Amino acid sequence: MAKIARISGFPEWTPAQRAVEQLVVDELRRVFELHGFASVETRAVEPVEQLLRKGEIDKEVYGVRRLAAEAGTEPGAAADLALHFDLTVPFARYVLENAGTLQFPFRRYQIQKVWRGERPQEGRYREFAQADIDVVDRETLPFHYEVEMPLVMAEAFAGLRRLGLPAMTIRVNNRKLAEGFYRGLGLADPAVVLRAVDKLDKVGADGVRRELRAGKASDEQAAACLALAEIRSQDTDFVQQVRALGVAHPLLDEGLAELEAVMAAASARAPGALIADLSIARGLDYYTGTVYETTMHGFEQYGSACSGGRYDALASDGRTTYPGVGISFGLTRVLGLLFARGLTASRSVPTVVLVALTADEQREAAQTVAATLRGRGISALVAPSAEKFGKQIRFADRRGIPFVWFCEAGEAGADQVKDIRSGAQLDADATSWAPAPEDLHPTPVQP
Amino acid sequence: MAKIARISGFPEWTPAQRAVEQLVVDELRRVFELHGFASVETRAVEPVEQLLRKGEIDKEVYGVRRLAAEAGTEPGAAADLALHFDLTVPFARYVLENAGTLQFPFRRYQIQKVWRGERPQEGRYREFAQADIDVVDRETLPFHYEVEMPLVMAEAFAGLRRLGLPAMTIRVNNRKLAEGFYRGLGLADPAVVLRAVDKLDKVGADGVRRELRAGKASDEQAAACLALAEIRSQDTDFVQQVRALGVAHPLLDEGLAELEAVMAAASARAPGALIADLSIARGLDYYTGTVYETTMHGFEQYGSACSGGRYDALASDGRTTYPGVGISFGLTRVLGLLFARGLTASRSVPTVVLVALTADEQREAAQTVAATLRGRGISALVAPSAEKFGKQIRFADRRGIPFVWFCEAGEAGADQVKDIRSGAQLDADATSWAPAPEDLHPTPVQP
Repeated sequence: MAKIARISGFPEWTPAQRAVEQLVVDELRRVFELHGFASVETRAVEPVEQLLRKGEIDKEVYGVRRLAAEAGTEPGAAADLALHFDLTVPFARYVLENAGTLQFPFRRYQIQKVWRGERPQEGRYREFAQADIDVVDRETLPFHYEVEMPLVMAEAFAGLRRLGLPAMTIRVNNRKLAEGFYRGLGLADPAVVLRAVDKLDKVGADGVRRELRAGKASDEQAAACLALAEIRSQDTDFVQQVRALGVAHPLLDEGLAELEAVMAAASARAPGALIADLSIARGLDYYTGTVYETTMHGFEQYGSACSGGRYDALASDGRTTYPGVGISFGLTRVLGLLFARGLTASRSVPTVVLVALTADEQREAAQTVAATLRGRGISALVAPSAEKFGKQIRFADRRGIPFVWFCEAGEAGADQVKDIRSGAQLDADATSWAPAPEDLHPTPVQP
Repeated sequence: MAKIARISGFPEWTPAQRAVEQLVVDELRRVFELHGFASVETRAVEPVEQLLRKGEIDKEVYGVRRLAAEAGTEPGAAADLALHFDLTVPFARYVLENAGTLQFPFRRYQIQKVWRGERPQEGRYREFAQADIDVVDRETLPFHYEVEMPLVMAEAFAGLRRLGLPAMTIRVNNRKLAEGFYRGLGLADPAVVLRAVDKLDKVGADGVRRELRAGKASDEQAAACLALAEIRSQDTDFVQQVRALGVAHPLLDEGLAELEAVMAAASARAPGALIADLSIARGLDYYTGTVYETTMHGFEQYGSACSGGRYDALASDGRTTYPGVGISFGLTRVLGLLFARGLTASRSVPTVVLVALTADEQREAAQTVAATLRGRGISALVAPSAEKFGKQIRFADRRGIPFVWFCEAGEAGADQVKDIRSGAQLDADATSWAPAPEDLHPTPVQP
């Protein structure tokens, strides 16, 4: 145990930070399950060749191999495995593997760690947890799920806001809308345009214009693409703004109608939670309809906190195709940013009550008090050793434990409980005393 | 996605099995937190040299390396990392790394996956989750934690029993008792005796006797060691039985007093949950006091479901030593055995109510019903498309969803809810209707 060092990109939280993470995960889970998403966990590894199918990300993948196999002592024992870099690829494989027994449309959530060998930086880790929801169906997937998914996430974000996390705005666009617009302009390769527009945040309008011009777009075409990307709307106004650009194409009509349906539902069910942002491109080729990105207020420069979209071929076994729509919340990424700015928990332990031991012969009575409180759902701990009054209080105070219990300390031998924050000390009975509901569990505390 | 195959030793659960796992983890967490254990998660990887310190387990360790680094394109970028094979080694490192800010005695629980490249077999996996509790202190750790730990696990097991899992019996012994006994017999190397006795289950009494005789024990000494290992006791009777063997040593006295304290507390606080079993040896060298193993009733041949003990040097940085006591529950191992025998959940989804759509124009009203139910903590799902009555019922039935809601189906336009198990259909209002508490979440179902 001589060499102890952090490993860059592999964050670990303090117990208080972990308590915040648990509250966040509990809230995500609560909302996902209320909406009928079933939990799935997949193994951490996939065959290397599965993960490298997309080619460009091979540098990010961590290979996994038994050390004995690597040393050559067991030829053939080396399975070519790698750690998954997202939860979508393993989920697609899980769907194919279990297609015979799953009920479609299949709704699942998945909260697990993933690994990417990217250069670590603030908000970017090599090991990090994501929280994904997806709906996947066989052959066809009704459009209405594209409306539903961001509303589920918006409900989860409202819950996280109540926990004290920053507000999130989900930014929505539609691939058909963009592609139809580019085609209506006469641009033959919409993917090239999309990739250029995707860099708007990084290189600015002039940079995008240069790239579009280099890609054979005229000044007018490039200007129209940039005008489209500038459109923002909290409601369905964007339809008129797009129409005003004077471009016509059937795919554009389809995309406009879909994005209009998303924004109309959002206005009715989660006002202010979504914004139509026609600059959202999402680089990945497999999106085919609505796409989502999310801005965490005050952290705009760190990129999207929660992203996803519709893909017509989430998975395919050659005979059957499984379309899906999903969103992935960057749990570790968001918490890492907030922890770095001081977000923590009201205490570092789950304990509500420290049962004091002012003499060793009290241990039996103290254990009974603690057991009684626990039986009523109140986390209780007997002090590790008999100590003076002041030491017991300090023990609780250092951990943020709000209450200290003293056996037979009151008149007529009654127990007493002290709120160490206010100093108030009152007679109490372990069979009936209860803390205020907000003291029952740790809560997030802003810096 | 052409090649889809399970990877031996890397189990994945169905959604219904995963629902059971969530219930089990929730119950473990509930009990651990009631007893003041704080959750900690550590990164999945440690430096290879940390994990290989114990030498003998190097074949079990999975190395982790960026594929780009392996290909030689980024020399020096290859961190020599490996996946952790238990939660004790990472926890010891976490304690040393954070010793300056943690409050001691530090109580933590940790529920995470670990990886071992062993040959997969029933109840043995290459990727599996463990649930550990440990108490660690600086320099000294009071003995009473050795009494407390199995009682916390016994309380968790009582909760799992209520969920329908088999009963568990925690078997307890004490290293000092065994070592003192062997020394009192005149055997100079207690570790050799311990390793021989540890094989009692595998090789039988004759096998152990042969190994002891080969290790220079006399017939009488070997017989006494075997007589000690045969002692079982549900209370403190074992003290007399050991004394009757006529061996004396100060360390034996100490061990007897400690094991007596454990069993006396267990008799008072968790009758029947613990058994003193003087054959328990635990192969690992680092245990120094009480040791624990656990038998799951009906699965005795699969070995211990939950094991641990006291170690005087859980961690050390050369200046400070951190003694600890901990127990590790084999979550995946236990669930794998039970799932193979048919344990599952009452339904494969969290959904309580399917809100039927008998016509497309009902979708808005159906969504409002679902949102109202969710606002009251009842998981609800709108049917994916408008279908006839029978199809809606079948959709719910296939997933185990107990209730189907029909908007404006009753007289005077009242909504109705049907329990598809009993067929009973009644008028209902989404602002007040509630399912029976046992229908609110999936529950474990025995085969």
